[in-house]
Amino acid sequence: MTMEAERTLREEELAGLAELAAQLRVDAIRCSTRAGSGHPTSSLSAADLLAVLISRHLRYHWTDPRGRTNDHLIFSKGHASPLLYAVFKAVGAITDQELVETYRQFGSRLQGHPTPALPWVDVATGSLGQGLPAGVGIALAGRYLDHLPFHVWVLCGDSEMAEGSIWEALDKAGHYGLRNLTAIVDINRFGQRGPTELEWDLDTYRRRVEAFGCQALVIDGHDLAAIDEALGRARQATGPTVVLARTVKGKGVPEVENQPGWHGKPFKPDLAERAVAALGGVRQIRVAAPRPEPAPPASAPAAEPPTMPRYDKGAEVATRNAYGDALRALGSRPDVVALDGEVSDSTRADKFGEAYPDRFFEMFISEQQLVAAAVGLQVRGYRPFAATFAAFFSRAYDFVRMAGISRADIALSGSHSGVEIGADGPSQMGLEDLAAMRAVQGSTVLYPSDAVSCAALVAQMVDRKGVNYLRTTRGKYPVLYANEDAFPVGGSKLLRGGGDDDIALIGAGVTVHNCLAAADELAREGIKARVIDLYSIKPLDRDRLVDAVRATGGRLLVVEDHYPEGGVGSAVLESLADLAEPVRVTHLAVRGLPTSGTPIQLMDQAGIGVSAIVAAARAAEAPATDAAGAVSPAGARVDAASAAGGGPR
Amino acid sequence: MTMEAERTLREEELAGLAELAAQLRVDAIRCSTRAGSGHPTSSLSAADLLAVLISRHLRYHWTDPRGRTNDHLIFSKGHASPLLYAVFKAVGAITDQELVETYRQFGSRLQGHPTPALPWVDVATGSLGQGLPAGVGIALAGRYLDHLPFHVWVLCGDSEMAEGSIWEALDKAGHYGLRNLTAIVDINRFGQRGPTELEWDLDTYRRRVEAFGCQALVIDGHDLAAIDEALGRARQATGPTVVLARTVKGKGVPEVENQPGWHGKPFKPDLAERAVAALGGVRQIRVAAPRPEPAPPASAPAAEPPTMPRYDKGAEVATRNAYGDALRALGSRPDVVALDGEVSDSTRADKFGEAYPDRFFEMFISEQQLVAAAVGLQVRGYRPFAATFAAFFSRAYDFVRMAGISRADIALSGSHSGVEIGADGPSQMGLEDLAAMRAVQGSTVLYPSDAVSCAALVAQMVDRKGVNYLRTTRGKYPVLYANEDAFPVGGSKLLRGGGDDDIALIGAGVTVHNCLAAADELAREGIKARVIDLYSIKPLDRDRLVDAVRATGGRLLVVEDHYPEGGVGSAVLESLADLAEPVRVTHLAVRGLPTSGTPIQLMDQAGIGVSAIVAAARAAEAPATDAAGAVSPAGARVDAASAAGGGPR
Repeated sequence: MTMEAERTLREEELAGLAELAAQLRVDAIRCSTRAGSGHPTSSLSAADLLAVLISRHLRYHWTDPRGRTNDHLIFSKGHASPLLYAVFKAVGAITDQELVETYRQFGSRLQGHPTPALPWVDVATGSLGQGLPAGVGIALAGRYLDHLPFHVWVLCGDSEMAEGSIWEALDKAGHYGLRNLTAIVDINRFGQRGPTELEWDLDTYRRRVEAFGCQALVIDGHDLAAIDEALGRARQATGPTVVLARTVKGKGVPEVENQPGWHGKPFKPDLAERAVAALGGVRQIRVAAPRPEPAPPASAPAAEPPTMPRYDKGAEVATRNAYGDALRALGSRPDVVALDGEVSDSTRADKFGEAYPDRFFEMFISEQQLVAAAVGLQVRGYRPFAATFAAFFSRAYDFVRMAGISRADIALSGSHSGVEIGADGPSQMGLEDLAAMRAVQGSTVLYPSDAVSCAALVAQMVDRKGVNYLRTTRGKYPVLYANEDAFPVGGSKLLRGGGDDDIALIGAGVTVHNCLAAADELAREGIKARVIDLYSIKPLDRDRLVDAVRATGGRLLVVEDHYPEGGVGSAVLESLADLAEPVRVTHLAVRGLPTSGTPIQLMDQAGIGVSAIVAAARAAEAPATDAAGAVSPAGARVDAASAAGGGPR
Repeated sequence: MTMEAERTLREEELAGLAELAAQLRVDAIRCSTRAGSGHPTSSLSAADLLAVLISRHLRYHWTDPRGRTNDHLIFSKGHASPLLYAVFKAVGAITDQELVETYRQFGSRLQGHPTPALPWVDVATGSLGQGLPAGVGIALAGRYLDHLPFHVWVLCGDSEMAEGSIWEALDKAGHYGLRNLTAIVDINRFGQRGPTELEWDLDTYRRRVEAFGCQALVIDGHDLAAIDEALGRARQATGPTVVLARTVKGKGVPEVENQPGWHGKPFKPDLAERAVAALGGVRQIRVAAPRPEPAPPASAPAAEPPTMPRYDKGAEVATRNAYGDALRALGSRPDVVALDGEVSDSTRADKFGEAYPDRFFEMFISEQQLVAAAVGLQVRGYRPFAATFAAFFSRAYDFVRMAGISRADIALSGSHSGVEIGADGPSQMGLEDLAAMRAVQGSTVLYPSDAVSCAALVAQMVDRKGVNYLRTTRGKYPVLYANEDAFPVGGSKLLRGGGDDDIALIGAGVTVHNCLAAADELAREGIKARVIDLYSIKPLDRDRLVDAVRATGGRLLVVEDHYPEGGVGSAVLESLADLAEPVRVTHLAVRGLPTSGTPIQLMDQAGIGVSAIVAAARAAEAPATDAAGAVSPAGARVDAASAAGGGPR
């Protein structure tokens, strides 16, 4: 490695960096010992890397964390939060008192792992292997959308290099030539429970990184000059760089250096005291951080009002097509971007891609990176829409979970939901997505039944906070609504009945159509069924349900193309849990393992088709006996599974 | 590449293989055209590879699919099912009639993507990037446990090489020196929506594979002699092999060869007719498959009865410790194996690892491979227990979902559930795991409150079918039960009350302890609260709940350390949905985004601590007004969030 003359640090500069590194170490020890928990040794190994980075390479207005030309700093190894917060003290973003007294305390923003509760933190980390993929999203924005000279620096641990998501990220970094991205891997050779898989086999790391299309720079992670040169080269590189830094876990504290058994263990006060003294005691060095370039005037073209698609009532249109139509229409806003998991001809995100190829990012078949890139893009203020099959978002569930913790504003569209997809079989059927997505903190879950409502919901997703999930259907079904109808998130639609009905049939998505057909058949038998389209699963229109309870004497039938746990039925039940009036819910859902077949065959097999709804509604009307054989005092009772056929267990 | 003399195929052998390959192509076309759906072009590209494999290398008793020395064949590219089923016809496992007439039909076992409904299929595929990781698990069993000479052959698509899970798998294959594993990558350069990321850049594939510790053999995937030599070399290799086969999508049908836009599209009948004719028409060649070595007599040591751990009532023991104790005890059975995601000192799987290092597999931080290896091990008859943090199983959710479709019998233990973990913050808290795991088809979900019940449940998991999920808690809590107590899956425990109680407090895991303390406090106020320990979340003890409804006039309070959607509360509500008697459930759950703090602080903040339970139970006893301001006719009504404090939204 050749040192360029202008990069050679003078002795006093090196001494200053060493002092700063000692301060970072001391502060990481102090705060974690005071908290009685945390990861000091994982912080000590990376202190030299960070000292050089924040003093000489990370261009950041610490008083203006939203500055458009600021670099980005992500701790993918989020457990090194003592080091990150020590950095924040060193640059003057937080006080020494806040650092030492509040770390990991209840109510503090200095949580055990970093979250965007801190304005200098872009994304929550702590689930390993996620910071780098998010950094790829930020770098994509910088290179392809913002065209601004900021750099994305990601500190990775060596243990997390075992996560496949790291390789999805490096692969995309190489593919998209993200020269504005640098990963710094702190290779201290110890994971939580012992040595990492590769320990200090730097050469294998190097070959992997290079094979995935990135420049690899191998350095001694405690050689300040070498770090400085590597980071300088990274910024000048023509592609993404991975700095592979050989480090020592616990570096600077001889009693724990390079020892197993010290992961995630704060030092006891006596050890901390010795360590701080040996490191030269507490310092209050304030780093003069390199300044970013001044931001040019924002030059984004003004958004034109989107011309949303219109559909003819009764025409047969798949909601996935309406998703594509609406997304393309929203493309008139320059902040809207779309991401594909190599299935855009199925999710119909291709409609956007054809119209706005510069804002369409192909992530190929790597759903983790698909979601992570969306999270990264929203860090830069974009409104990302990521789409794949509903079933395959399960591949990225940890990323969606962490997006919720990051308070990331993203839109996800899962197509091919339920047994309705037909012949492809269960591996392709999203049947647990509503349960999973509803359980994401702060999420919104939408499931339209027709093209008009789908387009209207997509239009609202673009400005909604948090994780927004849209569930679409493969097949074509009639347009039910007029283009002028409103579909507020949290609302629902009453499609039949509304007076003194005998039962309320509650569907969402494809089952709304089954409910309508069932209501027609029941009407011929003299049973008045109201039909509710519960297009907003979270938040849910509780008022509509309460009204239905009161109008029907508490007779509800929920039918969904989803497994029985955690889906539409559960949402209804949770919403009505504390209602005073008696409610009896017949719940039709997919209770067995589906197979291949036509949509009609599979919905009938699962007991969510028209005939099953009719039979269950009839049964709910007739007096029945309870499990003990006695006639129920309140009248009707139906066992959902048996009334509906149930399908194979 | 040097051809060894003894491997050189004679002209007539090559001609025979070409005939077989033509038959496989013809049959893949016939069945998919007849079905009107499927992926013929993805089958055509790999037909030559499979013709050579099944004729000369795959050692398999097709009439004895459970034979212990049979090789294993996995289609990781499950969408090439027409080719797989054409193989099954060629070896005589299914008839031509079944192939052509039932493919993708309702009720057929020849589903759109392969599942173990077919006895020759080990694992369901169709979610890309999963077959190879499962193959790693099978090969681990062969090399380290069975010590049998079978080989695992996995056909991969090139698109799925973008999945991080593929690299987790190759990394572990290299790490464990799995010379009994060969991946054959069908590099036809087209994905679903267009060219793959690397197209025919075989050299980049080679460098990646080699960097991840595997032998790479680059061949023309339509050169029968080259295929034969590569597969022969793979079987003789000293480590895992990846055959990188350059192929042509649609090979053999000039109208579609190497054309985009043909993914997942069956040929129309006229095109199919021309293609079949050009390929020489329908054949009924029957392959004489290479025979596996005779199986040696089973020599597994007899299982000694496990000596399950015992605990003293009142002693404070974490359930994660009880998991480790029970697992170590079950290690007396030689079929029990354990897997770790590099956190075994936290999950306490390390107790097993110390006692039985030969049956303990470290997967490092790659949760997808962790679950996939478990699925592979159970293919070989082992009883795998895989453990990581509850939160991090979300990383492998697609693998758990597919394990459900595979009908795989696996045990998963998720530690560090809920806000109870304290200072580490939300990234480490499993708060959606119950929702996600309940929604897996055929799953069992268990959540013990103390060490005795935990050990008893672990003992039952070992022989249960399907995906079994155990949720454990970080902190130590008093042992509640006697070692002699029974804890059948699907049961529950009544801990307080049982007569004419005012309210039933229903908890699971840590909240059981909060319910007990709350019941004591309520008793002092004259409110009789029964306490139910719902240790089995799925299946659920409905009888116990119905009994509680009848005894309390329908006043239930459910409290859980989980988000409100899809967890314990939803399970209770789903179970009682159709009950005749009125039920009003107060539902205390974690409604905001947690932070750091002590367990007590965080449970109190979330409104699931003792004081919140007491307050909510009191409110449920007092008449309240409903949303419209009117007094509810049935009396009590409580808004869970407001009564319980709720925590930050």
